[in-house]
Amino acid sequence: MPIRTGAEYIESLRGRNLRVYLFGERVAEPVDHPMIRPSINAVAATYDLAVADPELATASSSLSKRPVNRFLQITESVDDVVMQNRMQRKLGQLTGTCFQRCVGMDAINALYSVTFELDQKHGTEYHSRLLAFIRRAQEENWVIGGAMTDPKGDRSKGPSEQDDPDLFTRVVERRPDGVVIRGAKAHQTGCINSHQIIVMPTMRLTAADRDYAIVAAIPVDHPGLSYIYGRQSCDTRSLEGGTIDQGNAQFSGQEAMIIIDDVFVPWSHVFMNGEAETAANLVERFTTYHRRSYVCKTGLGDVLIGAAAAIADYNGAAGASHVKDKLVEMTHLNETIYGAGIASSHESKRTAAGNYENDPLLANVCKHNVTRFPYEMARLAQDLAGGLVATLPSERDLNSPETGPLLAKYLKGKSGVKVEHRVRMLRLIENMTLGRNAVGYLTESMHGAGSPQAQRIQIQRQMNVEEKKRLARRLAGIED
Amino acid sequence: MPIRTGAEYIESLRGRNLRVYLFGERVAEPVDHPMIRPSINAVAATYDLAVADPELATASSSLSKRPVNRFLQITESVDDVVMQNRMQRKLGQLTGTCFQRCVGMDAINALYSVTFELDQKHGTEYHSRLLAFIRRAQEENWVIGGAMTDPKGDRSKGPSEQDDPDLFTRVVERRPDGVVIRGAKAHQTGCINSHQIIVMPTMRLTAADRDYAIVAAIPVDHPGLSYIYGRQSCDTRSLEGGTIDQGNAQFSGQEAMIIIDDVFVPWSHVFMNGEAETAANLVERFTTYHRRSYVCKTGLGDVLIGAAAAIADYNGAAGASHVKDKLVEMTHLNETIYGAGIASSHESKRTAAGNYENDPLLANVCKHNVTRFPYEMARLAQDLAGGLVATLPSERDLNSPETGPLLAKYLKGKSGVKVEHRVRMLRLIENMTLGRNAVGYLTESMHGAGSPQAQRIQIQRQMNVEEKKRLARRLAGIED
Amino acid sequence: MPIRTGAEYIESLRGRNLRVYLFGERVAEPVDHPMIRPSINAVAATYDLAVADPELATASSSLSKRPVNRFLQITESVDDVVMQNRMQRKLGQLTGTCFQRCVGMDAINALYSVTFELDQKHGTEYHSRLLAFIRRAQEENWVIGGAMTDPKGDRSKGPSEQDDPDLFTRVVERRPDGVVIRGAKAHQTGCINSHQIIVMPTMRLTAADRDYAIVAAIPVDHPGLSYIYGRQSCDTRSLEGGTIDQGNAQFSGQEAMIIIDDVFVPWSHVFMNGEAETAANLVERFTTYHRRSYVCKTGLGDVLIGAAAAIADYNGAAGASHVKDKLVEMTHLNETIYGAGIASSHESKRTAAGNYENDPLLANVCKHNVTRFPYEMARLAQDLAGGLVATLPSERDLNSPETGPLLAKYLKGKSGVKVEHRVRMLRLIENMTLGRNAVGYLTESMHGAGSPQAQRIQIQRQMNVEEKKRLARRLAGIED
Amino acid sequence: MPIRTGAEYIESLRGRNLRVYLFGERVAEPVDHPMIRPSINAVAATYDLAVADPELATASSSLSKRPVNRFLQITESVDDVVMQNRMQRKLGQLTGTCFQRCVGMDAINALYSVTFELDQKHGTEYHSRLLAFIRRAQEENWVIGGAMTDPKGDRSKGPSEQDDPDLFTRVVERRPDGVVIRGAKAHQTGCINSHQIIVMPTMRLTAADRDYAIVAAIPVDHPGLSYIYGRQSCDTRSLEGGTIDQGNAQFSGQEAMIIIDDVFVPWSHVFMNGEAETAANLVERFTTYHRRSYVCKTGLGDVLIGAAAAIADYNGAAGASHVKDKLVEMTHLNETIYGAGIASSHESKRTAAGNYENDPLLANVCKHNVTRFPYEMARLAQDLAGGLVATLPSERDLNSPETGPLLAKYLKGKSGVKVEHRVRMLRLIENMTLGRNAVGYLTESMHGAGSPQAQRIQIQRQMNVEEKKRLARRLAGIED
Repeated sequence: MPIRTGAEYIESLRGRNLRVYLFGERVAEPVDHPMIRPSINAVAATYDLAVADPELATASSSLSKRPVNRFLQITESVDDVVMQNRMQRKLGQLTGTCFQRCVGMDAINALYSVTFELDQKHGTEYHSRLLAFIRRAQEENWVIGGAMTDPKGDRSKGPSEQDDPDLFTRVVERRPDGVVIRGAKAHQTGCINSHQIIVMPTMRLTAADRDYAIVAAIPVDHPGLSYIYGRQSCDTRSLEGGTIDQGNAQFSGQEAMIIIDDVFVPWSHVFMNGEAETAANLVERFTTYHRRSYVCKTGLGDVLIGAAAAIADYNGAAGASHVKDKLVEMTHLNETIYGAGIASSHESKRTAAGNYENDPLLANVCKHNVTRFPYEMARLAQDLAGGLVATLPSERDLNSPETGPLLAKYLKGKSGVKVEHRVRMLRLIENMTLGRNAVGYLTESMHGAGSPQAQRIQIQRQMNVEEKKRLARRLAGIED
Repeated sequence: MPIRTGAEYIESLRGRNLRVYLFGERVAEPVDHPMIRPSINAVAATYDLAVADPELATASSSLSKRPVNRFLQITESVDDVVMQNRMQRKLGQLTGTCFQRCVGMDAINALYSVTFELDQKHGTEYHSRLLAFIRRAQEENWVIGGAMTDPKGDRSKGPSEQDDPDLFTRVVERRPDGVVIRGAKAHQTGCINSHQIIVMPTMRLTAADRDYAIVAAIPVDHPGLSYIYGRQSCDTRSLEGGTIDQGNAQFSGQEAMIIIDDVFVPWSHVFMNGEAETAANLVERFTTYHRRSYVCKTGLGDVLIGAAAAIADYNGAAGASHVKDKLVEMTHLNETIYGAGIASSHESKRTAAGNYENDPLLANVCKHNVTRFPYEMARLAQDLAGGLVATLPSERDLNSPETGPLLAKYLKGKSGVKVEHRVRMLRLIENMTLGRNAVGYLTESMHGAGSPQAQRIQIQRQMNVEEKKRLARRLAGIED
Repeated sequence: MPIRTGAEYIESLRGRNLRVYLFGERVAEPVDHPMIRPSINAVAATYDLAVADPELATASSSLSKRPVNRFLQITESVDDVVMQNRMQRKLGQLTGTCFQRCVGMDAINALYSVTFELDQKHGTEYHSRLLAFIRRAQEENWVIGGAMTDPKGDRSKGPSEQDDPDLFTRVVERRPDGVVIRGAKAHQTGCINSHQIIVMPTMRLTAADRDYAIVAAIPVDHPGLSYIYGRQSCDTRSLEGGTIDQGNAQFSGQEAMIIIDDVFVPWSHVFMNGEAETAANLVERFTTYHRRSYVCKTGLGDVLIGAAAAIADYNGAAGASHVKDKLVEMTHLNETIYGAGIASSHESKRTAAGNYENDPLLANVCKHNVTRFPYEMARLAQDLAGGLVATLPSERDLNSPETGPLLAKYLKGKSGVKVEHRVRMLRLIENMTLGRNAVGYLTESMHGAGSPQAQRIQIQRQMNVEEKKRLARRLAGIED
Repeated sequence: MPIRTGAEYIESLRGRNLRVYLFGERVAEPVDHPMIRPSINAVAATYDLAVADPELATASSSLSKRPVNRFLQITESVDDVVMQNRMQRKLGQLTGTCFQRCVGMDAINALYSVTFELDQKHGTEYHSRLLAFIRRAQEENWVIGGAMTDPKGDRSKGPSEQDDPDLFTRVVERRPDGVVIRGAKAHQTGCINSHQIIVMPTMRLTAADRDYAIVAAIPVDHPGLSYIYGRQSCDTRSLEGGTIDQGNAQFSGQEAMIIIDDVFVPWSHVFMNGEAETAANLVERFTTYHRRSYVCKTGLGDVLIGAAAAIADYNGAAGASHVKDKLVEMTHLNETIYGAGIASSHESKRTAAGNYENDPLLANVCKHNVTRFPYEMARLAQDLAGGLVATLPSERDLNSPETGPLLAKYLKGKSGVKVEHRVRMLRLIENMTLGRNAVGYLTESMHGAGSPQAQRIQIQRQMNVEEKKRLARRLAGIED
């Protein structure tokens, strides 16, 4: 019986006895931890949306011969790729944060074509293993996490050049029935909230890095995995009780470090094993999908624009021309991101394996704008919010018999607007520009799916500069 | 027999006895005027491309039941809209300037749905007249110009409020067989190079502006039309002889003021007549198509990026990291424009009339980026060019026996690169950033299809701010 | 005996029985509250610097005939104004936050000339009262807070138009011996850490707003004052114990709302009383000083640049050309801010009253850059930091016997760099870009001393557009 | 008898029999050439200003014991340095172009301290020679040109590595009485309009480059010098007659290539000879002065802001909020440039030689902003101008009996504004953003005094990153 609703999903996470560490202690049951729960709620929204709007959030899979959650769909058409973006924007709008399920979606699609090509070339059977795995995932309606980012140690050195060979995840033993894997994966989005994690190499590998060329699926509750929870700005506001100061009390992102302590993976779950020369290809294909997935941030952008517009109303400032102009600028930036992303999806091409892959150049352009524009939008939102966004008293002060009435008097904005509403809206803006979801809206926008320089390198590779020079020479009257 | 090739097109322009004025004199034959000819060559490229690459530059018209030049196609599918953008980028790459045929393409498509709706509402017969006109245009393979921009007089006043009522084009007489039109249209792209011009209102009209609500097709060679040619930066270099100093000797844009001196138009060529309340709708629909047509500038951008990369090579500077980075930045900006434009086309919807119209919000976003990024790209190209781009001696100095050898010695760049090639590439960059085609690449990018503020107004209308506020309130925990 | 050292200053704050509220409760002794203390440390640094570097942080006062803390100096020369900026940058470097003493410095200097002119005009005695107050402050070496920002209620309405007349601070009673004041002041920097607060009007006032035209000094420990402490991002990390996760454990800013509950002020401490037409003048003069005081943020910028450079080292990435380029860009932006600020100070003019006032146009330009560039610098710092900046585990995880060794292994960066150092540096960057001191470095940079639009209005007033038009007409050959 | 007025200066240029080449021919008398004359007028303004406003444009020289033109003053105080900037801004306002006399001013001041130090170190007598030369220049009131930029050939190679050793200017023979110099200097500002030219090395030199380490003064009319005139955008409009289409008919800049054909220079005019290790020092010191001299562009910026404001008036658009906001933005950018420049001058320090040198870091920051902001200001000016700025008919069309009346009717803007004035203002904006003075306002702003990357290298050198890291470590709690 597959997981169907958000509630069922949450139940599926219980009792797994994960080794999750937070504030120096092992967490008894992550599902019930108030600091972790909002991130689980965000993933649950991906289930509920599939129920509420199946056209948007499910797809018909020819692999399973039935509708599956779109996050588990192997793209069978251009439209499948485009619809991913629409779903992502919608979920960004609904949660105001990272809903953590895109990495897996993009990983299975990248692996779909990469394993196909590996098998074609080497006569291996990675592709059929992957198909079996995906079919199972679709039947169970799993959340699949993709674990790519290694700790990396000294950035100027490759995997096999590090002082400690474990700073990139690697195979430490090959057995007849499978491989033993060791290492760690840093800042893994939604890993604790997943059912399976697919480990993948993080960068171009050389022949010397053969042991690092490993792709494998590991169940999240494998006893060899430990999770050290990442702190976020303002994370402990979830522990304070109340719902106001959190800004967005219901939803948040999640990142943790995964320690992989000599985990055995049977061959059935190994999808690459030593083909170092293919690592760059996999990374490029994954990031092609994933950099365009950052269209999700335009959903968050919609929320932030709405919050900025609402607070301008509440402040009595909505009529000022500079206020209206800043909302237009925010929208322009947000839609510029969306344009490049959805264009990349629309320009998808069929791979040799048969699934559809979006345009790589536009995907990198989309993500590169994501590393810039949300910061500018956050700046504009703080501009429109006014200084209160960073100096508001606490929720308890609002409710205290001594200070509550004073604040009710002095935090009044436009006539007819409740002070609590004004405060809530300011806290939401704080949440997205400085607080917990600023991590997802800003910092993750910067580094997720590759830091800015990674996109510039890809843009350089794909810009076809020789053809452009030829165009210029022709018009300049220079014979070739 | 339709016009087929560029050469045939150029012949079709001869002997029309147009009243074209330039430098205070009437031009005997514009086709043979060295300052005008490059703009004709640019239009001719739209014919030659249709021959060379019919898949790209022609389309199958169900109106004429045969392939027509894509510039004359009524969009019958999303793909038809998308292909317009691909063709536009290609022609931008081939000409490095404005090829002047998009206005007509976008005008007939906007009128297609607007006249359909007018007829539905008022029982008029504008739509069938338009169909007949388009069919004829397809058969003849005409260039259709769209004339929208009125002189406008005092910008703070509407048409009927001006001191001189002719500052917006208007009907001065209604006769049983048609209307008499008076006024002028400013900076009309490619008008002299067209066969027919469709006059349209330039802005939202009020009930008092009824006489200004006129849409009509006029043959370019109508004796009541006069054309006063617009100067461009460095325009007279075409008159100097030589091919170097022009930068792009073959191609340029064209803008002229059209004076409409009481021109009679029969009903068959009138497509709107007094429906003032529809003017805004027409303008919005036309600009929706046309603002996305500015994707053409990414073709020019490709040329400029290529020129910047080539000159860096010639200077021996191509290996510097900041040089490579600036080329990446230029590409990123250029593709960001393209992303929003092609996305707008991909997101086209079928109109009630049956043709396809691209997404208006993304179209405005595309154009708004066009008002910014080419300027930044021009700046970066000048950075990479080095100071010589604005201090090069003249072509005649290069060829003079006295100075030629000195320049051959002292303008040498990287070994193996001819000085003439280096000079030509610099002149091309000058052409696109300061010279003749800077008019098209920069200033027209700013004002064509509406100045920046016009896009901001449209973005404001289409940003759906109430829905965004609702999203924010929901996450902030504010009950509606 | 004046307060001399930081330690003495801290002692001077004890036992004042202030009504400070935080998290719904009255704080017993703010000095000992771990969440408040870092803000007190920052003010203490202004005392210690005066001892350590008297040339920089003291000045010879002709009022008191002896050296005084520079924050209490009435500027007696251009150099006095310039030295303020140098001291501010230094203190920004030393504390990485807002040291809270500038508002008072700028307030007394603005009032110095404003009261002089008021007396000249009205025969009042505000100036001599102010001199007596300043002399006393110099003798005691007080911290003076300036309280300007009213809650403002509906932003589209003036003081006397609000539903509740108390939404701007006002005189509710005039007595023979003084005035009674009621209202509140929002987000008051360092108010709890001050000895005296000078209340001033926040904006241009009309004749109807006469009761709002009040300037008066009130002792911070007046029983009629209450303080409701403002929350900051990550504020409660101070309560967790440990020193790492705070990022900057020693220093922070402070903002609180002051409730003024019918406080009586004797005439000796009243420096304006009803002269509504002078309010705009006072605000403009204060903001002229204060907008240039935001040069302090370049001191924070120095810290952030240093942190970004250090983390690039620790990551082994310092050699990458894009890394070096981003550090240059950060520096360029930081020094651009500094340039306009220090220029404003250098261009000071003597007032009629005899003190020196910096250039108003450049002051607004300085502050306007402060509302933009720190955000961009924060973005670049996060870029250089890498994703870990927002996903690091907690200090307790670092120290836990279970997770500590794992983190020691997997958070290793460049050889020879301690993991703890890498973590500390990342936490400092988090502190300044998302955490507690992001409030001061970003949001306060936006809104302190007036939001961006306020600077634009001032720039518009001071840009002398008629003279510029005249220059243009002359060169265009247009006779006047 | 020194040259006193602009008119006398112009006379001083006559009859020098210079070898000036333009359009492949030798120019008989540059003073009377209509394309060259506007650049001479711009220099003449530096003489007239000294007469009209001696406080601004002259200085008291302790070298000559009398007032001298400020362009010839060795800076004797901080104020002398600051006043240079004020004079430069004023001349930018008066001419709207490059007035060409700063290079010499900055060169003699840089050489003043460099030669002093050379003599201290090597016992040479460069400094006294220089003093004699400067004294003479002051007595005659010469224009001194500084010739620094070599053709450079392949940018990836140094002087002695080029295929042709002459691609950097060098000593080809050392004689008992002086040296023989060969080479060329590219795009030399105002060289033809000067009386003497000081040749200097263009970059850091190695020991192998000894022959390139030459500094010498050469009279402009030396028969061994040839000048090949650089083309500028729209340069030939000066040849058309009329005064409108030129935009700024009176003033322009000038750049030419100087060919140095084995010119002998006696020792008395040699100020460096072989001290290769000092070349970098000289370049750095010269660019320190000269990068801050680009404050002149804020004078041009004032004109452009005024032109944009005026055309908005003429268009009837001055009341629109976005128009006002764009004028504010232009002003903000312009004053940001000014702030860094004037700050650099205010922060001048006394050199060992006794003259005053401005702050190098702020000088580079100033110039770096100059490579960015004028482009953005030009973009905004074109935005405010409207499309007509690039499509206006010619002056002859305005005056023609056929088209003149039509244009008088249809180019009408706001009531009461003459069409000719509107056209003139648009032509001025074209002149500064695309036309002849765009070369000076944009391209020279980019490359003059060193291209952007040169400033970034200097900023990197001067940013004191180790001290900044120390500040960060201290606050992060990292013991050194």
